[in-house]
Amino acid sequence: MNTFAPALMTDQYELTMISAALKDGTADRQCVFEVFARRLPGGRRYGVVAGPGRLIELIKNFRFGPAEVDFLRGAGIVDETTAKWLAGYRFSGDIDGYAEGELFFPGSPILTVSGTFAECVVLETLILSVLNHDSAVAAGAARMVTAARGRPIIEMGSRRTHEDSAVAAARAAYLAGFASTSNLAAGALYGIPTTGTSAHAFTLLHDDEPAAFASQVAALGKNTTLLVDTYDIGQGIRNAIAVAGPDLRAVRIDSGDLSVLAQHSRELLDSLGAVETQIVVSGDMDEYAIATLAAEPVDMYGAGTAVVTGSGAPTAGLVYKLVEVEGRPVVKRSENKATVGGRKTAVRRHKPTGTATEEIVVSQGVPDHAANDRLLQRSYIAAGEPVDFPTLQESREHLRQCLISIPWEGLKLSAGDPAIPVTIVPTV
Amino acid sequence: MNTFAPALMTDQYELTMISAALKDGTADRQCVFEVFARRLPGGRRYGVVAGPGRLIELIKNFRFGPAEVDFLRGAGIVDETTAKWLAGYRFSGDIDGYAEGELFFPGSPILTVSGTFAECVVLETLILSVLNHDSAVAAGAARMVTAARGRPIIEMGSRRTHEDSAVAAARAAYLAGFASTSNLAAGALYGIPTTGTSAHAFTLLHDDEPAAFASQVAALGKNTTLLVDTYDIGQGIRNAIAVAGPDLRAVRIDSGDLSVLAQHSRELLDSLGAVETQIVVSGDMDEYAIATLAAEPVDMYGAGTAVVTGSGAPTAGLVYKLVEVEGRPVVKRSENKATVGGRKTAVRRHKPTGTATEEIVVSQGVPDHAANDRLLQRSYIAAGEPVDFPTLQESREHLRQCLISIPWEGLKLSAGDPAIPVTIVPTV
Repeated sequence: MNTFAPALMTDQYELTMISAALKDGTADRQCVFEVFARRLPGGRRYGVVAGPGRLIELIKNFRFGPAEVDFLRGAGIVDETTAKWLAGYRFSGDIDGYAEGELFFPGSPILTVSGTFAECVVLETLILSVLNHDSAVAAGAARMVTAARGRPIIEMGSRRTHEDSAVAAARAAYLAGFASTSNLAAGALYGIPTTGTSAHAFTLLHDDEPAAFASQVAALGKNTTLLVDTYDIGQGIRNAIAVAGPDLRAVRIDSGDLSVLAQHSRELLDSLGAVETQIVVSGDMDEYAIATLAAEPVDMYGAGTAVVTGSGAPTAGLVYKLVEVEGRPVVKRSENKATVGGRKTAVRRHKPTGTATEEIVVSQGVPDHAANDRLLQRSYIAAGEPVDFPTLQESREHLRQCLISIPWEGLKLSAGDPAIPVTIVPTV
Repeated sequence: MNTFAPALMTDQYELTMISAALKDGTADRQCVFEVFARRLPGGRRYGVVAGPGRLIELIKNFRFGPAEVDFLRGAGIVDETTAKWLAGYRFSGDIDGYAEGELFFPGSPILTVSGTFAECVVLETLILSVLNHDSAVAAGAARMVTAARGRPIIEMGSRRTHEDSAVAAARAAYLAGFASTSNLAAGALYGIPTTGTSAHAFTLLHDDEPAAFASQVAALGKNTTLLVDTYDIGQGIRNAIAVAGPDLRAVRIDSGDLSVLAQHSRELLDSLGAVETQIVVSGDMDEYAIATLAAEPVDMYGAGTAVVTGSGAPTAGLVYKLVEVEGRPVVKRSENKATVGGRKTAVRRHKPTGTATEEIVVSQGVPDHAANDRLLQRSYIAAGEPVDFPTLQESREHLRQCLISIPWEGLKLSAGDPAIPVTIVPTV
């Protein structure tokens, strides 16, 4: 069991840097760090900012308690001065960033952390862990939602990822437009609708399939989903309707050629008078599998592995870079990683119709912006105090609107360029 | 913050199945569930069992407290009978499985859970989450260790995955043979050696590179690693040796064409008299990048993204299936997922030289086994009580021995068949 505070979920070099900086007097230099992606994974056309809501809570409680400090001192990782500094740590700077549910592109400054070097650098691992994980899941999930064309998707991938990631993944998928999750902790923590009825084991436990279905209907009523593919799907559907009657809510199919099976199942259900009984399909669903089923009589999808692993891109490629020291822009100069220094401000420009056209990012200044433009950064923490920010529900709606606003090519599933260009204007 | 117990990190359908089974009297039927993989991801030649050490601790503490039960009842997910059952839950059955660090192949029964239907089914999500995550990381990490041919690898991927996954990933990478981790919580929880010195931000914070190096050496001594690629690598190395002297422990290069840079850096270090100063390389390291550097003068690797995301296979594809009810083998019959029912026992056969030749898995019986063979399952929990099992250090050594034992083709990085065949012998 993890008996250490989240503050220890950090990379050692942050603390050794703080040790050295406390010793040489640079620890208190005012710095600005920025989180951004150099590129989008695998030819994706947009990224989705996910995680700030979770992150701000974690930063608010980011403390090194006696157990953590004792470990660090005992292991010789920090000296006495640093141990004392850590024991008194509380972030007192500012954090600004893109709203949760906002789209981002290569170079978008999605989070800006300002304060002393030491108080900012110690948050690096936590900030990147939360944003890289949650944004990776949300980006893949958003593509699935687009592919599903309004049909609901259930997130059911908990078992395919770390037990704690599973809860955050359910949150990110809901942000991206999924209808519900199988993960109960996500329901309890974030108020996400939960769903789930039965597995093949439940059918196998019983003497036969009708007995299993009768038991489920007796316990959960007819407003339930019967899993009909344990033995033979056709017989399974007949058994389901025989037991529950034609007003059964739904049947689920978890294996086989889902296109053909959905058609046959619809015909069979209709022939049995179960014209309102829905068809739920699951099993290796990603955005491509969902798109393939667009024309089939499917009412709902269940997605697991692909959603919790970012559908081929399990991390969002976000980095945390020092861009300003005491008001002076700084930048790493080694080849192929040229970035622009200085604190950046971002605006997204739109046509009068509302379609986004470009993102302008200005270093140490504010871009010109007109009525159709939108400044993208907001305050999350001001002088160490968290600021109110939107609910998960509001962020979900914000993403929905953002996806409507990008040029239609941006919603294609194929690999391509970012949906809109980002122009970074260096310090004049 | 997660304020709910791990018992809530579960899929809703487990609890609805329990509700129905409590109602119809099947909840107490004696069952056997098995964890296995139908295939290895991406043409991998072996899987690595990782996670049991973490899992058994979590199962020992798997309880539904008042907060969890209140949520489930309040949300209408469980009825009163089930709520009462959950409140009294404590696993009282048996868990047997492959040792941590053991290899597995498609069909290997790596974990066997026996008890009543209800007490076993409720553990499904937790068991799969832990084993799927940890085994995915360990499998990719083991390939990197093979590719590194004895050179040490540092795990530094925390920032690329969920903050809690990061700690488990560091553990799995260490199990697989990594030398150390940057993750402090993994050091504190599991006794894994931690390492880490400085980032580019530390150099940028200072007025110039020599000032940053001098500060680091003043704080950490010459037995440290200076990051030399913030500006110009050649100048960085000259600055490093000028500041620290020729007995500096190591320099790190994090970008660029690492083959060429390692050669040039070695020549330069030697010309400066720093013949013992080591070269550490990092930046997008996976098993293929490591293999490419085999002939270069590299002393140590740092791996991040690839290791925490399973190097292309972020989940191990393990499933949890009901195989026996009241002593009777059961199996799902739908197409393409034919499995053999019944509790299985596994033996790995070896040549007299120690090379593994095959795995034999027998349903409801014990395979013949001779002196060179090894029964693969051991007890983890007996009648609800955890049994002593090997330390992480011992499991690490076990994996090292297992990798020596497989045919040499099994260690190739290219896609191929499993290193040894698994024959599953159905119930006679």
